[in-house]
This record gives sequence, C-alpha cells and structure tokens, in this order.
Amino acid sequence: MAAAAILPELATQVLIPVAAAVGIAFAVLQWVLVSKVRLTPERRADGGAAKTTGTSDYLIEEEEGLNDHNVVIKCAEIQSAISEGATSFLFTEYKYVGLFMGIFAILIFLFLGSVEGFSTKSQPCHYSKDKTCKPALANAIFSTIAFVLGAVTSLVSGFLGMKIATYANARTTLEARKGVGKAFITAFRSGAVMGFLLAASGLLVLYIAINLFGIYYGDDWEGLFEAITGYGLGGSSMALFGRVGGGIYTKAADVGADLVGKVERNIPEDDPRNPAVIADNVGDNVGDIAGMGSDLFGSYAESSCAALVVASISSFGINHEFTPMVYPLLVSSVGIIACLITTLFATDFFEIKAVNEIEPALKKQLIISTVVMTIGIALISWLGLPYTFTIFNFGVQKTVHSWQLFLCVAVGLWAGLIIGFVTEYYTSNAYSPVQDVADSCRTGAATNVIFGLALGYKSVIIPIFAIAFSIFLSFSLAAMYGVAVAALGMLSTIATGLAIDAYGPISDNAGGIAEMAGMSHRIRERTDALDAAGNTTAAIGKGFAIGSAALVSLALFGAFVSRAAISTVDVLTPKVFIGLIVGAMLPYWFSAMTMKSVGSAALKMVEEVRRQFNTIPGLMEGTTKPDYATCVKISTDASIKEMIPPGALVMLTPLIVGILFGVETLSGVLAGALVSGVQIAISASNTGGAWDNAKKYIEAGASEHARTLGPKGSDPHKAAVIGDTIGDPLKDTSGPSLNILIKLMAVESLVFAPFFATHGGILFKWL
Amino acid sequence: MAAAAILPELATQVLIPVAAAVGIAFAVLQWVLVSKVRLTPERRADGGAAKTTGTSDYLIEEEEGLNDHNVVIKCAEIQSAISEGATSFLFTEYKYVGLFMGIFAILIFLFLGSVEGFSTKSQPCHYSKDKTCKPALANAIFSTIAFVLGAVTSLVSGFLGMKIATYANARTTLEARKGVGKAFITAFRSGAVMGFLLAASGLLVLYIAINLFGIYYGDDWEGLFEAITGYGLGGSSMALFGRVGGGIYTKAADVGADLVGKVERNIPEDDPRNPAVIADNVGDNVGDIAGMGSDLFGSYAESSCAALVVASISSFGINHEFTPMVYPLLVSSVGIIACLITTLFATDFFEIKAVNEIEPALKKQLIISTVVMTIGIALISWLGLPYTFTIFNFGVQKTVHSWQLFLCVAVGLWAGLIIGFVTEYYTSNAYSPVQDVADSCRTGAATNVIFGLALGYKSVIIPIFAIAFSIFLSFSLAAMYGVAVAALGMLSTIATGLAIDAYGPISDNAGGIAEMAGMSHRIRERTDALDAAGNTTAAIGKGFAIGSAALVSLALFGAFVSRAAISTVDVLTPKVFIGLIVGAMLPYWFSAMTMKSVGSAALKMVEEVRRQFNTIPGLMEGTTKPDYATCVKISTDASIKEMIPPGALVMLTPLIVGILFGVETLSGVLAGALVSGVQIAISASNTGGAWDNAKKYIEAGASEHARTLGPKGSDPHKAAVIGDTIGDPLKDTSGPSLNILIKLMAVESLVFAPFFATHGGILFKWL
Repeated sequence: MAAAAILPELATQVLIPVAAAVGIAFAVLQWVLVSKVRLTPERRADGGAAKTTGTSDYLIEEEEGLNDHNVVIKCAEIQSAISEGATSFLFTEYKYVGLFMGIFAILIFLFLGSVEGFSTKSQPCHYSKDKTCKPALANAIFSTIAFVLGAVTSLVSGFLGMKIATYANARTTLEARKGVGKAFITAFRSGAVMGFLLAASGLLVLYIAINLFGIYYGDDWEGLFEAITGYGLGGSSMALFGRVGGGIYTKAADVGADLVGKVERNIPEDDPRNPAVIADNVGDNVGDIAGMGSDLFGSYAESSCAALVVASISSFGINHEFTPMVYPLLVSSVGIIACLITTLFATDFFEIKAVNEIEPALKKQLIISTVVMTIGIALISWLGLPYTFTIFNFGVQKTVHSWQLFLCVAVGLWAGLIIGFVTEYYTSNAYSPVQDVADSCRTGAATNVIFGLALGYKSVIIPIFAIAFSIFLSFSLAAMYGVAVAALGMLSTIATGLAIDAYGPISDNAGGIAEMAGMSHRIRERTDALDAAGNTTAAIGKGFAIGSAALVSLALFGAFVSRAAISTVDVLTPKVFIGLIVGAMLPYWFSAMTMKSVGSAALKMVEEVRRQFNTIPGLMEGTTKPDYATCVKISTDASIKEMIPPGALVMLTPLIVGILFGVETLSGVLAGALVSGVQIAISASNTGGAWDNAKKYIEAGASEHARTLGPKGSDPHKAAVIGDTIGDPLKDTSGPSLNILIKLMAVESLVFAPFFATHGGILFKWL
Repeated sequence: MAAAAILPELATQVLIPVAAAVGIAFAVLQWVLVSKVRLTPERRADGGAAKTTGTSDYLIEEEEGLNDHNVVIKCAEIQSAISEGATSFLFTEYKYVGLFMGIFAILIFLFLGSVEGFSTKSQPCHYSKDKTCKPALANAIFSTIAFVLGAVTSLVSGFLGMKIATYANARTTLEARKGVGKAFITAFRSGAVMGFLLAASGLLVLYIAINLFGIYYGDDWEGLFEAITGYGLGGSSMALFGRVGGGIYTKAADVGADLVGKVERNIPEDDPRNPAVIADNVGDNVGDIAGMGSDLFGSYAESSCAALVVASISSFGINHEFTPMVYPLLVSSVGIIACLITTLFATDFFEIKAVNEIEPALKKQLIISTVVMTIGIALISWLGLPYTFTIFNFGVQKTVHSWQLFLCVAVGLWAGLIIGFVTEYYTSNAYSPVQDVADSCRTGAATNVIFGLALGYKSVIIPIFAIAFSIFLSFSLAAMYGVAVAALGMLSTIATGLAIDAYGPISDNAGGIAEMAGMSHRIRERTDALDAAGNTTAAIGKGFAIGSAALVSLALFGAFVSRAAISTVDVLTPKVFIGLIVGAMLPYWFSAMTMKSVGSAALKMVEEVRRQFNTIPGLMEGTTKPDYATCVKISTDASIKEMIPPGALVMLTPLIVGILFGVETLSGVLAGALVSGVQIAISASNTGGAWDNAKKYIEAGASEHARTLGPKGSDPHKAAVIGDTIGDPLKDTSGPSLNILIKLMAVESLVFAPFFATHGGILFKWL
C-alpha cells in the first residue's frame, strides 16, 4: 500500500492539459486541411497550386466537370441553406431547453441544499466519519455549477459538431468529383475535427473544473467529486433533449420527404423539387451530428464522474494520491493520443481508391485504435497506479492490483470492438443478414419488416454477452470502480468513434447536395457508397454508445446505491421488484412517445409536401422552387413540442420514484430500465440500419443477387423503401435516445441520492 | 393459531371433485347444445322441431338460403378437411414432442435422483430439519411421474380444444345464416366447452395426483408438494411446443396465403382457389386453440403448484391442515362455479341481436365473472382458511390473516380485469388507438407500422402498473404465497377467459368456411363481425395469459430461491447482474428465432402458392381444385423443424446456467427474462391485434371515417393488409410464446433446484 504511482503529481498535472491541447490542435489542423477545398468558383484565379498536380488531374477535371462554376455556386448555396436551417433550429431548441435546464438547476440547488436544511456548518464525512467534510449547501452550490458546466459543454460540443459537418458536406460533394478516395478523406477529416474537439474539450473542462472546485474543497475529495457528478448530469440532460429533439426533427423530415417524394411522386431522394429536402438535410446535422455529439460527450462525462466518485472514497481519495485519483482522466488523455495515431492511418498512410475499400478502411480504424489503446492503457496503468490499492465496494475496501485495473479498462475497450464488429456484420450489406432482409423484399414489405425485426432481435445476443462478460470481469476485479473504468475503456477511443460516426451524416448530406445541385449520376453513386458505409458506422457508433451506456449506468447505479446508504438491492423484496418491472417498462413508454411523435410530425410534413406539389404550379417540372421554409418550420415546431413529454418522463421519473417510493424502488427502476433498455436500443438501431442498407443494396445492384431485386422502382425496391422508412425513427430517434434514458436516470439518481436518502420514500413512510 | 378453517377436511375432499364434475357436466351440456346444429343436409327429414319455430323463421330461411343442401354439404366437407389436417398435424407434433419429453423425463429422474446419489434412505427435511422426509430418489420418481402427467393433461387439453373447435366452426357458419346472434351463441358455447373442460380436468387431475401421491408420502407434505411441481413443468413444456409449433404453422400458412392471395392475386381472404387456405384454417385450430389451451392450462397448473409448494412449508403444511393447504384448489373450484353462472348471461339470459352488441357482450362476461368471483373468493377465504396462519417467507414465518389472503386473490383477479379492458381499448376498432392506426394507412404501410409499434409499446404501461400493484400488495401481505394466489386469482375465471378466447378462432374459421363454401356476402359480413370481436378477445386472452405468467413466474422464482437455499438475490453482485442482463436478452433471442421461422416458412409457402397459380390451369378461374395437401405439408414440416431451436433455448437455458453458473446467476436470468419478456409479449400481442382490427375497420367501413379509407383494395387498405401480415407472427407466434418462456424457465428451475444447489455452478467452483 505504501508504494505510490510512478508518475508524480506534477507530471500528471502537465500531461492531462497537454493531451487535451494536442487533441484540440489536431482538430484545428484537420479543419485547416478540410478548408482547403474551396467553395468559391474563383478557384482558377488563385489556382497555381492546383495546376502543379499535373496532367492526370486535368483529365479527371474535364471528365467530371470540375470547371462547372455553376455547380460550385449551387453547392455553396445549398450548404449555406442547410447550415442556416440547422443553426436556427439549434438556437430555438437551446432556448427552450435552456429554460428547462434553468428550472432543473434551481431544483438541484433546492433539493440538495435542503438535505441539511441549508446549513453552512461543516459536517462529518459520509464515508470517513472521523473526518470533516464541507456542508451539504456547498454540495448543492457546486453540483449546480457542475451541472450548468456540463450542460454548456454538451451544448457547445453539439453545436460545433453541427457547424463542422455543415462546413464539410458540400466540400465532400465537390471532392467526390475527383474520386471516391478524396471525398472519403474530406468527410473523414471533418468527422475527426468533431471527434478530437469533443474528446479534448470534455477532458479539459473536467480537468479545469476539478482544479477550480479543489480550491474551495481542499482536502475534502469526497465532497469535491460528489459535486463533480453534476457535470455528468448536465451533459446527459442536454444530450437527451438534443437526441430526442434532433431525432424527431430529422426523422419527421426524412419520413415525410420519402413518403411523398419517393413513394408517391417517384422522384429521387434529395431531389430539389421536394419541399422537405432542406429540412431533411438539416435534420441529419441536428439529429445525427449534434445529438450524437452531445450523447457521447455525456457518456464520457458520466463514466469519468462515476469512476472519480468511487475513487474519492477508495484509497486514492482517502490518501490523497492525485495521480491515481485522476486515472480516469489519464486514460482519456492517452486515448486522444492513440486516436491521433489511428487517424493518420485513414488519412495519410493509406489511400482509398475504390468503393469497396471504404468499409474495410473504417473497420481498420476500429482495430488500430483498439490495439494502440491497449498498449496505452497498459502503460498508463503501470505509470499512473500504485501496484496495490483498495477500492470502495459497498462498505468494504477491496484490494486491487494495477494489472487488474488494466484488465478492467481493456475488457471494456475490446468489448466495444466486438460490439462494433457484430453491429457491422448485422447492418452492412456486405454480409448475409442484410442480404437476407433484402431478399425477403421479393415477397413484399411485410416479410421485409418481419425479417428486419428478427435481425434486430438477433443482433442483440453477442453484444449482450460481451457486455455481460465485461461487467462480470471488471465487477469481480474492482467492483463498481472496475465497471466505471471499463466504460471509460470503451469510450477511450471516442475521438475515432466519433470521427467514423460523424462521417456518415456528412456523406449523406454530400449526396443530398450532389442531387440538389444536379450533379452527374457518377458523383451520386460515389456519395451513396460513402453513405452506405456511413449507415454501418452510424450503427457501430450507436453500438458503442449503447454498450458504454450500459456499463456507465451500472457504475453510476452502484455509486448511487453506496451513496443512498443501502447495502443490497434484493430483487425478492416487493419494493425492489415493482421498481424492476416498472423500470423495464419505461423504455417502451419512452419509445411509444418518440415513435408516435415522429409519426405525427411526418404526417404533417406529408400533408404540407402534398399541398405544395398540388398547389404550386411548375414544381414537378422543376421550373418553380418549393417553399422549403414551411417544411423546416413544421419539423422545428414538432420537435420542440414533442421533445418535452419524453424528456420530462426521463427527468422526472427518478425524482418522483425517489421522493414517493424511496431509494430501494428507485434502485429497481434503474436496474430494470438498464437491462431492458439496452436490448431495445441495440435491436432498434440495428434493425433500422439493416433496412436502410438493404434498400441501398438493391439500389446499388453491385451483385448478381442484388440485380435480381432491383432496379430502383421495382416491387422489391418499393418494399425495401417501406422498411427503410419504418427504420428511420427506430434507428435515429427512439433507439439512440434510449441509452440516454438509462444513463441519465442513473446519474440523476446519484446526484439526488443524499436528498432521497434524507427526505425520500414519503409514500411508504406515510403507510 | 389454534383456530382451524370452518370447512372440515371431508367437505373439502367432496367439494373439489364435485366442482370439477359440475364443470365437466356443464361442458358436455354445452357440447350437446352445439351438436344440435346439424351438419347433414337431411335436416328436413327429421325436422319436425324446426318447423314448430313458426313462419318468421321460414322467411329468414328462404332469404339466406337455408335450404341450399349443397352449401351444407360443402361446409361439412371443408370442416372435415380442416379437422383432418389439424388432427394429422397434432399427431405429428406430439410424436416429436413426445420423444423430447421422454428424454427430458429421464433427465429429470437422473438429475433429481443424483442429488443424494440415488440413495433410498429417508433424510432430514429441507425446511423442518427435525422431521424426516422421503429420500431424494422418491422426489425424482414422483417429479417425473407428475411431469408426464402434466404433459399428458396439457396434450389432451389442447387436442380436445382443437376437436371441439373444428366441430363447431362449420356449425357457426350455418347458424350465421339465421343471424349474428345465433352464430355468436354457437361459437361462444363451443368456446365454453373448451373452457370448462380444461379448467375442470386440470383441477381434477391435480386433485387426484395429490391424493394418490399422498398415499406414499403420508405426512411428508413438503416432499409431496415438491414432487407435484413436476405437474406444472410438464404442462408448460407441452404448452411451449404447442404454442411455438402451432404458432409457426398457423402464421406460415396465414402470411403465405395472404401474400399471394390478397396482395398479388387480389382474391379475398379464405378464397377456395388459394392453395394455402386449408392450411391457414387448420393453423387457427392448432395454434390459437390447441396452443392457447395448453398455455393457459400450464399457467393454471404452475400457479397452483407454486402456491402449494409454499403452503407445504407454511403453517398449513407443518400442521397438516388439509383444507387451507388445498386453498388454491378451492379457489379454482369456486372459479368453475362462478364462470358457470357467468356463461348463462351470455347464452341464456340475453340475446345478441346486432353486430355492435358482440363486443359489449364479451366485455360483460369479463365483468360479471370478476364480480361473481370476488364474492366467491370472499366466501371461500372465510370458510377455507383459519383467521390467522403463518406463511414461509425466505426463512422466516410471516403471520397472515385470512382477509389479507382474500385481498391477494382479489387483487390478481381485478388486475386481470384491468389488463383485459386496457387490451380491449388498444386493440378494438371501436376506440381511437386502432382508428388512429387505420388513419395512418393514408400515408402508406410505413406510417401504419410506426403507429402500430408505438401503440403496442404504449399499451404496456397500464398493464405493467396493474401487475406491479398486484405484486406489491400480495407480496407485502403474504410474501410469495400471496403472489402465487394472486396469479391464481387472475386465472380463477379461466373457464370464461378461455371461452371468449376460443370463440375468436372459431369465428375466424367460420368466416373461412363461409367464403370457401361460396356463401353470400351477408353471411361473411356477420362472421367478420364475430371475428373482429374475436381479435380483441384473443388479445384479451393473451393479456390474461401474460399477466398471470408474470405473477406465476415471480411466485415460482420465489419458491426456487427458497428451495435453492439462497436468501437474497442482490442485483449488485456480478453473478446476479450478468444473469439479469442476459435473462432480459433471452426474449429477444427467442423472438428472433420464431419470427425468422415464420418468415422463412412463409416464403416457402409463397413459392408453392405461386407455383400452383402459375402451373395449374384453371385455378384462378375456379374450374380446378388447388393442391391443398402440399401446403399443409409445408406448414407441418416447417413448424416441426423450426419449433426445436426455440424450444431447446427455453428448456436448456436453466439447465446450462444452473449447472455452469449456479443458482445466483440463474436467479438473475429468471428475473431478467421475467421483467423484459412481459413487456415484449404484451406489446407484440397488442400491436398485432391492433393491425388486424385496423384492417377490419377499413374493410367494414362502418363509419364515415372508415369509408374515407376504404374500400377493400384502396391504397390505405393495402397498407393495412401489410400491417396485418407483419402483426401475424407478433401476435400469434412470438408474443404469446414469450409468456411460456418466462414461466417455463421458472418452473424448470424450481424442479431442478435441489440438483443445482448440490451440483450446480461448476464454472465458478472451478475458477
């Protein structure tokens, strides 16, 4: 126990901000590279550099019409319309969410302050009764500050992601004229900007907050890291609204646009004649990009907080060993470096030349980042941890060795890779599951839906075993701290994960812009290929988000139970069991709300699009422009209005259950929501991804089998389009929101635990 | 404690068999009444009685073609084809299942016998260590016998149900010529035959088994009722295969027939030109009737066994008080009488005159049976229980009063009614949820599916709260015994429940026969109206089955935990938690298998039906008969082959988990499967029911709104047909099988508990 970590405190204090700074610098570098693709047609004028690339480039230029100034101008116009739409929506969303968050911040302050009746006196510590800790009022104040900080960081993360994506989409389109490889690099670099910016800024803000809060808290690390958990709550609350609001927005527009455009009017996807087309493209950016960014940032913040709060009452915190105390932050720091190395493999060491190299390249990213990171974890576990230490485990201190903690982080990391691969297998049209789904379209939409649902259910099996194994190993080795760092391990390559994830919607948008700008069929084919790989990577990203959410929630749940002063959560007590079964129901309730919202909003969108087609003369002929703004407004209004009930369900459930039924029932609710929500989330994401790619499989017609199902407009293709449309709300609204549901309820319970333990369970007290 | 029950042992020994005999007699009486409808055209010859009914009847006869001998002969022919198909399938199914059950019986004997190394020596009792109990070998032998007995009773129940249904379907068709009221009574009476026969014979066999086993066991009630639990296991194992095999059979045929017939060839449902039409109608009888019968019998047997096994180690068993000991059987006895009274309200006290009176009449059945039964429970709780007694509660004896036990049974009963009503609300096309789903067909199949899924998710909320409340109350009042009798309360009106449930498929078949016999449009309209109500009652029946399965499983789970000698199931231990999350995944795995099976079998059916339409000349014109037998064979082969993997998953999981990981992990698996499976089962059943009735709503065109969506063949109607087809496997295969999954795993764990406790968990022991 006497042996300290090899890394001295000073080195740690330097390493973390430096890693964050490197991450930010790398993001800026990638951004500079993306910005080299000019969106102004005056390219020729300053084009000395372009000329030096030689004759072969010229040949391509002429072939693909690089010189067409009108196309470039059109792309720039469309991009700015999308960017404006997205910005305006996010501002509206943030206004409403800001109000909600303000009220919630006051609630946090009041509830936590009331634990000791707003007393300003110091009190004996919760875990180390012989020491003196800061008053509950301090916890209330700093938790509230941390909450606001988390919310703002999450908001900025999502917003910046959207800005980057809308900056990159038209540039990807233009690069697609030069070939699929160039387009891939542009889209991927843009994703990397977002990934590194998020990972680095999340780490930096947390690091600064710990140091600033530390000035007040001094030696009271228990209090310090309790207050820091507010950061996770803020991040996830913001993410919830981002995911739900953005998800409803994007799918209302997408479903609405498809139902009239593709099905009724038989015009291509993203055709500029479709009035909902701008709303659809805006949606990709506010839902898949901004929502996803906030979501993964939330997971990252929560798993760090969960690990830190357990560490603060373990030997690290008790003995004030700074380096091992911030081990979670060290893991993230190493993660940034590992991802940086990995990115170079995609952008600099190799080049994509053909369409079928895209998916392997993205898969390689996953493998490389995992291998590099494993070495990184081994190193930092050796340097940053004492060989032996103790971890708080429901009232007792459990002895753990540094190599055991390495195993915990590594098992999470590798489980993430397995989940990623399984997701790829079930959602990529290179493998038999999606091809089977496509084949079932022969007999119509009904069999397509039956096969798709069955595929989603089946895709749950291996990820759940992977999660269960990680939990078992990390839990056995290092209790809840082990689970928390396993989650962190899964998220340690978040920069790469986000890069390949954000790449999808950027490519999707690029395709949309190509279509709208009237570019040639070949360009569209290239962006479609990027997009098909993007569907898979988006599903992989969701897999990571869900897997890590499961681990994070369990860790938070464990921390909550410790803090709420209950020692067991026995299923065989009525209080816990009813919580368990009701908790398992919540994901269904939540999904019912979000799916219905998308459905209703889509119906409104369909009416508007039909109205425009029927009343605006010359629209179908392409001589008149549709009224894009009304469709944008419908999506905006619907998502703002409809995100409140599901948001309230998630945010209020822990409060209501905790106050009325107390901490035992709340424990049951958390466990039930966790084990049930994970399954629906995975199956919904994969079913949706598979349908989308089954459709793309038929459209691309790249194999003998695929050609027997096509071409576009054939009966099997029509059936596939129906599946794709059904999958939209599953994969982009209800599915990915569910992981926020489970982790947000857990982190909220943790933050409010002292209040529930003191004033909760009034119904049973009264009975 | 000294006060005994008012009812002496002798009276109890008389009351139970008498109630069973009354039930059987009543079933026979109903059967006689149904058989009065002649299926032979020589009706005129012996028709003196018919003539006495007066001139008004004559008018109807002529109007509806009662005199058309050809129609009667055709109905009789079709009925016998359906009956033969169903009998032949069930025999094939039973042959394979019999083999499986034989092997499983040997496993039971070997595993349970090995607990004490096949010793024939008596041993100290498990719970009352001071007493001597029969050897483990006796438990092995009698458990195996009880298992076989349960399986055979379940098999006979399903088979008789099928026989009755195929006896009644053509009779219902013929009665439909006289009006909807007559047809309703015939269908309902036939359902009642099945309901009463099942409820009474289940009770009688259990009663006889207890008395026969008692000859050997003597005073060792603990051992006696442990062995009796094998009865529940046998019943449910049989039900599993019945549900899954029958479910795949019926839906492969139904989906296959619809996809080619309705969608491609545009011929009506049940058109005799469709080669899959006989298979489809056979399916209703082997799936919805035989499967459902086995299923509810299984639930009934299990809840009785769960209550008895807990009672045997409570004060009833310890003090050998016979009357309160068999309180669960007394409740069922009273239930038969209560249902008998209720049935008279449907068949004798009132008469249905119009289509819109059908659903209210069935709803009235639910309410009346619940009210009558509440009085019955109060009476039997007062007569059959001492005022104060103790109930075994995880190692301690909890004091309970008789009125508290009354509350436990009553809360289950009323929760069942609430579940029934909520199910009706969400699946009947008289209310807005289904009408909204129908309305969403305007924008195509995709929105129909999105709205339908959302409806199913939403329909889970109130039933789960009702189940949670019942569990909380009964658990708090009388521990696991309370939960078991609550389940029994929900099932106490099983005779009525089965009657209104079996009524659905009988009406469905009646409609099919009318179509195939070429009867007039008006007859078909009447049977369609019966059938639409039948979809709702089928959903209600599934609601009961699922709700009771949840309660039963929990009670069995509690008994398992007691018997496996673990005192808590703490979610916050790695062993339990991994069980919980994997258990929650099992329903998805199972559903993936069953849905995929239906999909694949349906594809084969589609190919065959298409082949026949394409190659048999004159088939579409109706001049040649299709080859029905090949379609029957496809359904048979597919269901026999495909029922094995999901069956094995359910049967083997408890064995594998128990042997490798031990009882803690198995506890987690049971709890996880329970809380997750209930939700999917309810949502799948209701989504499917809603889609079916949304389609019927459009077809019937009974309101202004419905007519804007129709008529048959319109785009919204086509979208509704797609939803209906998707819903088929959800509502008739995977959904209803899931409740067997959760309760079968629980009862199996209970039966094998002594083995797992002695030899289980080898993986952890080895680590």
